[in-house]
Amino acid sequence: MQDHLITPTPSAYTYPLLVKQLLLNALSIHGDQQITYRGEMRYSFRQFRERVGQLASVLRGLDVRHGCTVAVMDWDSHRYLESYFAIPMMGATLFTVNVRLSAQQILYTLNDSRAEVVLVHTEFVPVLEEIKRELKFVRQVVVLADGESVPVMTLPVAGEYEEMMARASADFEFPEFDERTRAATFYTTGTTGDPKGVAYSHRDIVLHAMGTAMSLCAPREGQRLHREDVYMPITPMFHVLAWGMPYIAIMLGLKTVLPGRYIPESLVALRKSEKVTFSHCVPTILKMVLQAADVHGEELTGWKLMIGGSALPPALCEAALDRGMDVFTAYGMSETGPIVSLAQLPPGYDSRDRQEEVRMRCTTGRPLPFVDFRVVDGNMQDVVRDGKQQGEIVLRSPFLTRAYVGKPEASEELWAHGYLHTQDIAVMTPDGFIQIVDRIKDVIKTGGEWVSSIEVESLITGVAGVQECAVVGVLDEKWGERPMAFVVRETGAGVCAEVIRERLMQHVDARRISKYAVPDAERISFVTEIPKTSVGKINKKLLREQC
Amino acid sequence: MQDHLITPTPSAYTYPLLVKQLLLNALSIHGDQQITYRGEMRYSFRQFRERVGQLASVLRGLDVRHGCTVAVMDWDSHRYLESYFAIPMMGATLFTVNVRLSAQQILYTLNDSRAEVVLVHTEFVPVLEEIKRELKFVRQVVVLADGESVPVMTLPVAGEYEEMMARASADFEFPEFDERTRAATFYTTGTTGDPKGVAYSHRDIVLHAMGTAMSLCAPREGQRLHREDVYMPITPMFHVLAWGMPYIAIMLGLKTVLPGRYIPESLVALRKSEKVTFSHCVPTILKMVLQAADVHGEELTGWKLMIGGSALPPALCEAALDRGMDVFTAYGMSETGPIVSLAQLPPGYDSRDRQEEVRMRCTTGRPLPFVDFRVVDGNMQDVVRDGKQQGEIVLRSPFLTRAYVGKPEASEELWAHGYLHTQDIAVMTPDGFIQIVDRIKDVIKTGGEWVSSIEVESLITGVAGVQECAVVGVLDEKWGERPMAFVVRETGAGVCAEVIRERLMQHVDARRISKYAVPDAERISFVTEIPKTSVGKINKKLLREQC
Repeated sequence: MQDHLITPTPSAYTYPLLVKQLLLNALSIHGDQQITYRGEMRYSFRQFRERVGQLASVLRGLDVRHGCTVAVMDWDSHRYLESYFAIPMMGATLFTVNVRLSAQQILYTLNDSRAEVVLVHTEFVPVLEEIKRELKFVRQVVVLADGESVPVMTLPVAGEYEEMMARASADFEFPEFDERTRAATFYTTGTTGDPKGVAYSHRDIVLHAMGTAMSLCAPREGQRLHREDVYMPITPMFHVLAWGMPYIAIMLGLKTVLPGRYIPESLVALRKSEKVTFSHCVPTILKMVLQAADVHGEELTGWKLMIGGSALPPALCEAALDRGMDVFTAYGMSETGPIVSLAQLPPGYDSRDRQEEVRMRCTTGRPLPFVDFRVVDGNMQDVVRDGKQQGEIVLRSPFLTRAYVGKPEASEELWAHGYLHTQDIAVMTPDGFIQIVDRIKDVIKTGGEWVSSIEVESLITGVAGVQECAVVGVLDEKWGERPMAFVVRETGAGVCAEVIRERLMQHVDARRISKYAVPDAERISFVTEIPKTSVGKINKKLLREQC
Repeated sequence: MQDHLITPTPSAYTYPLLVKQLLLNALSIHGDQQITYRGEMRYSFRQFRERVGQLASVLRGLDVRHGCTVAVMDWDSHRYLESYFAIPMMGATLFTVNVRLSAQQILYTLNDSRAEVVLVHTEFVPVLEEIKRELKFVRQVVVLADGESVPVMTLPVAGEYEEMMARASADFEFPEFDERTRAATFYTTGTTGDPKGVAYSHRDIVLHAMGTAMSLCAPREGQRLHREDVYMPITPMFHVLAWGMPYIAIMLGLKTVLPGRYIPESLVALRKSEKVTFSHCVPTILKMVLQAADVHGEELTGWKLMIGGSALPPALCEAALDRGMDVFTAYGMSETGPIVSLAQLPPGYDSRDRQEEVRMRCTTGRPLPFVDFRVVDGNMQDVVRDGKQQGEIVLRSPFLTRAYVGKPEASEELWAHGYLHTQDIAVMTPDGFIQIVDRIKDVIKTGGEWVSSIEVESLITGVAGVQECAVVGVLDEKWGERPMAFVVRETGAGVCAEVIRERLMQHVDARRISKYAVPDAERISFVTEIPKTSVGKINKKLLREQC
């Protein structure tokens, strides 16, 4: 069937999809648009392009070639944004190191990725020093001093970032290559086993940017991105390329604000001073932002926040809406690009029904165009779309991870039957809204029923006086499993187990949950903190071990 | 460098970009959305998908295989929309026949494209009958009777469209294949030489849909497409795939209205009854629509109209704005996908300056993301972006025609130096607005200066009493060339050559045009009609012959 392909004329440019093309419009139309780091450093897109050239020259000077891996350990900064472009554009691989991992895990990922050069913020130098002797491939370190002095260190330091940039040429001819070339890599950190390396190609990044931008821009109003937005990431740039959003912001020519390390007060202040209108974060950060704004009496009206990483609790959603924020859920995983669905309100929804609106904003949303989004049973058959039948979310899209680096078995498991398996259990409504009910491994099997730990968490979090909650299944001789709730009280609140049980029983009466979902009184434990993973998710594995 | 490509695990789905994927969301989320043909026939997206399956079954029954070409000769209908999907999705090639061409030209294109099956509306049966004996590859004809009876004919008729559809199975398994497979073909009809075949692959169509949708959706307000729009094409579906817009409408889940043959009164009536909010057309159609609305006292407020094909005259733009329409220019050619730039108003423009707003809406616009849009001199050097220096527009984008079918020399000329040559002469402003001043071959060289025939046409069209105008260069012993204007007066208007010259001299005084641009009195000719090409552009070749 090859004879029906279109054969380009020899002089035609066949246009592989490459990260560098995201810059075409940024430079041609938006050359004067601003990028700022914490409001302290500020430059234009035009200067950004020069700095991207300079960074490539610096790295070429360190003998970074096509296919080399360059690791970055930094907070969200202009330097990180420069790395997002310069490193892939050279044909090298950007490795975004999860700086929240333990030193041993960072060591593992630096060795597994074969990183040769590391750009490291002074704050993370001690970690590198600690693992220095076990690093197998790192041969040069560039220090990101961030205006401070470079610490004394024994690592092979090539120089300080800004000093090296100042000496480097902005003229760097970025080459052409196959669009399937690896552009970026990072590690997913499940609660078991070694971190698994995920990689995205240039094509993946470009198609994710196009598809996600199209979907984010398409609503008539609300839960949308547009050309006049001011963008600030509050999902770390080391985490799934900050959901791909920095690439979209540059592609669309948006003013981009990089907040450095996330300090809630600073975020709220930056939002005000830089007139930020669009951000994205996990629910925990939203909660911290709301608290910081309350303390300082700051307005948050009009701030659009895309929420992901874990489910947006309805109570938190309401609290944000009450402050005039426009919050909505995005769903995806490290392996999925990441964004595959968005909880934008559908055309014609009833704006007078606040509860329904909150419910829709907190769902997993509806699939993006080009995403073949299925909820299937164990035989890969689609479950009935009645909002009740549960199944696993499996996916196809143009920008999914096609293999874990060097992990053939895990890769085949991920792609069993030709669909990417998310291990998320969900229901789907007739109009395409998806609601994740749990992770496969977190579903609680009790009294012959499947209880969603997430739903119980969400209901308990809605009880007055509760700040946070985590629910896991514990073994029970009679019922198989029983739910166990860990609850953090709000400061000064005296909420007790019986009050929580009473409120849950009301939901049982309203047929919202099964009676088996209500934890026994002795299985509601009040704690001061819920353990989290490095990316801010509840660490259920640890909780189960504590039961 | 192949070793740095990402290697998919064997079970991974690698997701070639295929036309069938444009339907994923349409079916998953928008299954109840409507498609209507003239308001007479109406069905849901879900039924549309079934009919696409049926059409594929019909064509498979006629032995249409991967790589076969199927031609369509129809007005804008649901049948055409079904062909847009079913034919490429089978792996066959959709050939959209320009029904405005002469019988001999249609014969040429049917033979050159090797079309084996033709779907033909009864209105075009006489043309096919006329050329029947010279058709080399056509072996079956499906008649689109459109509710009428099938005429007696000697062509090899397989059956009537709706009758065959009714008997066909909706279950058709659309295959997977290489994304570079030819999906659609049609012919560009310059004023010289044989029509040239242009082809687009599945990848081209999908990337054009993604890129254009993203750009059309991105503005904060105005000149934009959103999910609640109702779409009606008024650029024929045989013409550059109706600018790719039907694919975008289905992808985004928009209600789609197919108006049949373009009758201005019907268009205005359909716009009202179906609540159409987004269309696209050439300036001539806009003028006819305005006239029809005036005659019938119809409102046009809120109708967004993307204008292309030829320059939008400022006077026409103002007339549309006065009626509350939101008109703006899109630029492209048959060879460019087509859309490569849009004249959306930029963020922060001064909404109080009506003249400036009209000027911006009538420009060629600003490049879309991913379009490498250059204005270059004869040595492929970028001209200064001062809004004055003229050069040719040359392009790279992910969805350009990579070769004319079977025309290696013309293909190499098109792609000289690795950029697609548009033969449009333009200027570019520092903020990226492009203004086409003329076609290379239509620029008038007079008195040592280059005069844009389009600018003079635009200024003459702005004179009270002038309905339409065309300007060409005629040989002149003294000046090299001189402009010659053909003017159509509005009904009952008595505008004369001296009035036109006086108005043009005011523009000379305002330094808008050179004095050489003002036609001599004897070179302003009043005519009843301006000759047009089959796609509605002024036929300057014919006009030059008449001089």
